[in-house]
Amino acid sequence: MSILNSTSRTVRVVEVGPRDGLQNEAVMVPAADKVRFINLLAAAGFGDVEATSFVSPRAIPRLADADAVFPALDHGHGTRFPVLVPNVRGLERALAAGVREIAVFTAASNTFNQRNINATIDESLANIAAVVARAKPAGVRVRGYVSTCFGCPFEGEVPAETVLAVAVRLRDVGVDELSIGDTIGVATPNQIEKVLSLLLARIPLDMIGLHLHDTRGTALANTVVALQMGVGCFDASAGGLGGCPYAPGASGNLATEDLLYMLHGMGIETGVDLSKVVEASRFIAGVLGHQLSSRYLAACAAAEVATGR
Amino acid sequence: MSILNSTSRTVRVVEVGPRDGLQNEAVMVPAADKVRFINLLAAAGFGDVEATSFVSPRAIPRLADADAVFPALDHGHGTRFPVLVPNVRGLERALAAGVREIAVFTAASNTFNQRNINATIDESLANIAAVVARAKPAGVRVRGYVSTCFGCPFEGEVPAETVLAVAVRLRDVGVDELSIGDTIGVATPNQIEKVLSLLLARIPLDMIGLHLHDTRGTALANTVVALQMGVGCFDASAGGLGGCPYAPGASGNLATEDLLYMLHGMGIETGVDLSKVVEASRFIAGVLGHQLSSRYLAACAAAEVATGR
Repeated sequence: MSILNSTSRTVRVVEVGPRDGLQNEAVMVPAADKVRFINLLAAAGFGDVEATSFVSPRAIPRLADADAVFPALDHGHGTRFPVLVPNVRGLERALAAGVREIAVFTAASNTFNQRNINATIDESLANIAAVVARAKPAGVRVRGYVSTCFGCPFEGEVPAETVLAVAVRLRDVGVDELSIGDTIGVATPNQIEKVLSLLLARIPLDMIGLHLHDTRGTALANTVVALQMGVGCFDASAGGLGGCPYAPGASGNLATEDLLYMLHGMGIETGVDLSKVVEASRFIAGVLGHQLSSRYLAACAAAEVATGR
Repeated sequence: MSILNSTSRTVRVVEVGPRDGLQNEAVMVPAADKVRFINLLAAAGFGDVEATSFVSPRAIPRLADADAVFPALDHGHGTRFPVLVPNVRGLERALAAGVREIAVFTAASNTFNQRNINATIDESLANIAAVVARAKPAGVRVRGYVSTCFGCPFEGEVPAETVLAVAVRLRDVGVDELSIGDTIGVATPNQIEKVLSLLLARIPLDMIGLHLHDTRGTALANTVVALQMGVGCFDASAGGLGGCPYAPGASGNLATEDLLYMLHGMGIETGVDLSKVVEASRFIAGVLGHQLSSRYLAACAAAEVATGR
């Protein structure tokens, strides 16, 4: 029997570059370029492109133009454009802009949550409950990010039981799906198996996605183990956009190109055209004025130089 | 049952940076710096550091100083220092320098072999047979590299049956162990499983090592699948040294640091001190005057900047 037998035949890749990537870039990208970038990604075939965040402009200046960006997005490809919202006020702004899917967030590490958004996990969960209570009657789908599930820059390893407790509370307040995050990119495959095994005993498989960072090169190795456990949803960032906010100069989000290359090589369908993702990444790299961290993207560029294309 | 249950508890990491890495660098590293680099790696605890190549200086100018480098190596840590030899003449030079372990090489793709070393696979195998016939009576252990096992820049995908045929012929002429190479870094986990499954039906597990390149980011994902199949030997290059000779600017060899970080995180013992590998990589990066491609190495440097160390 093949050790890869249990792998899903189709995988949903949630593109998070325009939000999670751009919010960590040093350069402020003009709204029109963000719109073009997001629309190029939609044209590549993603079911979901996380577009922006309706958060306070003071908190995340890079995404202060959400009200201008969102209404300009191209809905012609059937792509969903979830946005991050921090609270009910952000949700009201998002609803006014026409948003139909949102994402909320908390850490699994209390210290990280306090340093990151100045709230305890309990406070974040109460806030999320209020957002969900307003969102669901409006027919808005809610995704819940749980960060630092495999390690915290302040607390070190985070107990899998703590991740489970936070996940269960998110499910109980009505969050539709979870994105389990390796925020600082420390996870190794055995940890992925340990945390997922615990989660899957209480949370349905189709509610669970993984949000992996490639800071130490392990993101695709971790993906393989998650695929073997049946997980069918992975977040990724075009080009690896965004870097690591906790270690400037290091890699952050798993690059969408690297994930797609591996999945497609394994015969797993995503519905996404890899060459069009490369096109989108090259566009935004030009705006930012620096190379992105995707290995696949670098290999493409190098191959073109080598062959004189 | 854990999906990682079948993983070996100890893994042998063969450090190939001084040979496979440096031979592809644009800068000629002085012999004294090569010696220091290799000795730093030996002090890190590797059982094997491939030190240099006794090949024609015209063929590989970067390693033309093998006769000067080899006798200066530090044997105090018990590290083996295999060297690459292309033919019986190279072997004689190596024996005269005191070499006790050698590596020979052929591709699994005929076109690649002809373009790379101007020989058919049959000619390479005949040459290897002559080298082995001279080496074995001298008590010299022989490692056989098989390159382009998962793809060739000229022929595309290489049939697994061809890889098997080459591997069996190497075994039959008396090669002690094989290093199965993804020379251009195209393999995905399903291919690893396919090729290894075929090989393991005819070749003992303890004869097989993997030589993975991270050109498209899949090297550690491929490592996980090989570990699950029981493979216990992996080649890697300090810092990811060497780049990709077929796509300048792209990543080549799997970085030793990234491999060790994952293995150690999985509780797998290697006997190697990761922090000392970082020290060796930083030394050689300083000599070369450019950053290396290891994700772990970049994360270390970034963390030190962030914490003011």
